[in-house]
Amino acid sequence: MQKSDVRMRGFLKRTPVNTLLSLVKNHSHLLPAEDIPTFEASGRILAEDIISPANVPDFDRSAMDGYALNAEATFGATSYNPLMFKVVGQVTPGESYKGVLKPGEAISIMTGAPVPSGANAVLMAENAEFSNDHIQVLEAVPPGKHVGKVGEDIKKNQKLLQQGRCLRPQDIAVLASVGLTNIKVVRKPEVKLLITGNELLKPGEQPSGVQIVDSNSVMLAPLIERDGGVLAKVHHVPDDRDLLQKHLSKTDADLVCMTGGTSVGIEDHGPMLVDELGDLLAHGIPMRPAAPTGFGLINGKKIFLLPGNPVSCLSAYDYFVRRSLCMMGGHSDEWPYRNKKVKLATKISSEIGRIEYVRLRIENDLAFVIASGGASILSSTTQADAFLLTEEDSEGFAEGDEVQVWLYDS
Amino acid sequence: MQKSDVRMRGFLKRTPVNTLLSLVKNHSHLLPAEDIPTFEASGRILAEDIISPANVPDFDRSAMDGYALNAEATFGATSYNPLMFKVVGQVTPGESYKGVLKPGEAISIMTGAPVPSGANAVLMAENAEFSNDHIQVLEAVPPGKHVGKVGEDIKKNQKLLQQGRCLRPQDIAVLASVGLTNIKVVRKPEVKLLITGNELLKPGEQPSGVQIVDSNSVMLAPLIERDGGVLAKVHHVPDDRDLLQKHLSKTDADLVCMTGGTSVGIEDHGPMLVDELGDLLAHGIPMRPAAPTGFGLINGKKIFLLPGNPVSCLSAYDYFVRRSLCMMGGHSDEWPYRNKKVKLATKISSEIGRIEYVRLRIENDLAFVIASGGASILSSTTQADAFLLTEEDSEGFAEGDEVQVWLYDS
Repeated sequence: MQKSDVRMRGFLKRTPVNTLLSLVKNHSHLLPAEDIPTFEASGRILAEDIISPANVPDFDRSAMDGYALNAEATFGATSYNPLMFKVVGQVTPGESYKGVLKPGEAISIMTGAPVPSGANAVLMAENAEFSNDHIQVLEAVPPGKHVGKVGEDIKKNQKLLQQGRCLRPQDIAVLASVGLTNIKVVRKPEVKLLITGNELLKPGEQPSGVQIVDSNSVMLAPLIERDGGVLAKVHHVPDDRDLLQKHLSKTDADLVCMTGGTSVGIEDHGPMLVDELGDLLAHGIPMRPAAPTGFGLINGKKIFLLPGNPVSCLSAYDYFVRRSLCMMGGHSDEWPYRNKKVKLATKISSEIGRIEYVRLRIENDLAFVIASGGASILSSTTQADAFLLTEEDSEGFAEGDEVQVWLYDS
Repeated sequence: MQKSDVRMRGFLKRTPVNTLLSLVKNHSHLLPAEDIPTFEASGRILAEDIISPANVPDFDRSAMDGYALNAEATFGATSYNPLMFKVVGQVTPGESYKGVLKPGEAISIMTGAPVPSGANAVLMAENAEFSNDHIQVLEAVPPGKHVGKVGEDIKKNQKLLQQGRCLRPQDIAVLASVGLTNIKVVRKPEVKLLITGNELLKPGEQPSGVQIVDSNSVMLAPLIERDGGVLAKVHHVPDDRDLLQKHLSKTDADLVCMTGGTSVGIEDHGPMLVDELGDLLAHGIPMRPAAPTGFGLINGKKIFLLPGNPVSCLSAYDYFVRRSLCMMGGHSDEWPYRNKKVKLATKISSEIGRIEYVRLRIENDLAFVIASGGASILSSTTQADAFLLTEEDSEGFAEGDEVQVWLYDS
């Protein structure tokens, strides 16, 4: 059966934004694990529970500079009745005292050094008087004083970290300290960008005549990295159906973002190709800008049709693609921007059923709508300090309303 | 004049934390600019004002799919009195119509395509009835309707971005769109790590006997990257005065972090070497953990003496080194963690004049102090959800007090 041209069906039936979001989430499964060096794993999502294979430390160590000795032998010592200990040696971190300390003997010890056999406490240097090869102990010391026991930091077989954790710098340090050189983390989703448009020059070229420079790939690259993805490949492709078909029909990436050619004009091959080659699950959403957004699957790979206009591209990326990448990579899909409550200096109108992506300038906690706010005006997102999204069931906000905005710089 | 051994002077006189912080800030000057490719510049600090060398677009373009025509020729058109226009061609983005449109002529035009000479408005496809090579115009169109004028996004010679700005993904997209392939940004500070301690094995080795694995370099590497620095080199050096002297006396890095050997024990060569080779500006601070922190200059390079105990190392890094790196790189030195108000489930004692770095577990907005919180217990920072810092002039907090904490995961 010949499928009809989806472009002609056009946007007569738009997919509600939340319906599309659910579709995207349902198709954004957690990726499998990969093995990577521990020291590269900060910020990655742990794909296994970690049980410690070792004690840290694997020896009793001193927590102070002072004298290791037998605690019981100090009992009764006071500054009126000092007890004398013979200092039989010295131990610094990384070495060990070979002998066994006898009661009445002490050994000079540095923080981090192993406490020798026969000793069970460390007397702080300040509480002893040293002369020749003896110390006067002025105070009794309880057993265990200033001694870090075997496993005081980490115990062997202790559960260290749980699957799903986003690894902190100190986490990978802990993993290194128990000798784990490699760990399993969730693989990063790979993204292919298909940048389409006969009018586009590649980034690095000079704008001239009736051509403009592709800015979408430049913007999307750091966003994809921010969201835990890997930009595997950027293709710049003219509005050529056959070429686009070739690029869409086979891909190694987990996710393809096609920008441009996603609307209902005669050069908009994207939606039809996804419909022919796979399943076009949604095309056209009540979101402004970003109405010509689409989503589908080809051979199980997610295809996002993003508008070519850069503001639409940004808002559609942040709303849908970001969340898909975060979910595939195991990251939280909360907005990556700081939020702030501000008062509106101007009213904002929205139609019920539609989400508006509004760019705002903030001055003294007052928010002003950026006037030159068309979908093609990328500079509006550099002039803006923040953006807000209206709710689907809202008609907008009145002047003076307090609203929650997302700060671009965060 | 032979300088006396600073270790023996010890910590009798500690430098207040705020005094050290001021010293650090006074020596953390903004680094000079470097030229880098625009597409690598997201997150970098702009070192020049950017004036646009081009208009974007450099032609009038259509903001709609429809028909370009002369607006004045449509005046008077209604659905009762449609006006007929001859469609003389089609123009898509990236191409241009060579002729000049006459009144009574229209051209089919796609969003983003250049509006031809003779036309000054675009009629939406929905408002025209097409048959053969003519359209019936059902509605008058004002001049300029659905036309994006030359420079609608960016005007030539317009100030685009200001020096000091932390570049957003959309900023570098704007820079690419005006054809700027390279820009000047603040150079990233280079950091050398000097990891000292006879007891240390390198990361990747297995802990054994009386040796432990260096975890500080593993933890500091991603923190330095987070704070806009570049980890230039990691040296693992034993507690050998001559070797350490060699490493400290000459360095290409902007900043050296020496971990371990910074206290007042017999193997603690750091403070004395900095005192001999340059200026030891501070050594010993009333902060717990992190008391054996020091700071000095050798040949104008900043030397941070960080405690070897990993919790101390983390807190001293975050409090001092982080801020130094951010200031050198032009970044905000605000804490990079999200903050949250929680209620204390336990009291926290602090001495006046001392800052406590307290690790906390958060459960239902209640904060519990992590009990096993010594300076050597790195796992306390993986068990903790957050930390707080007491104020120098505070005696701590009572149970039930509301406190502001910093979340590690943010």
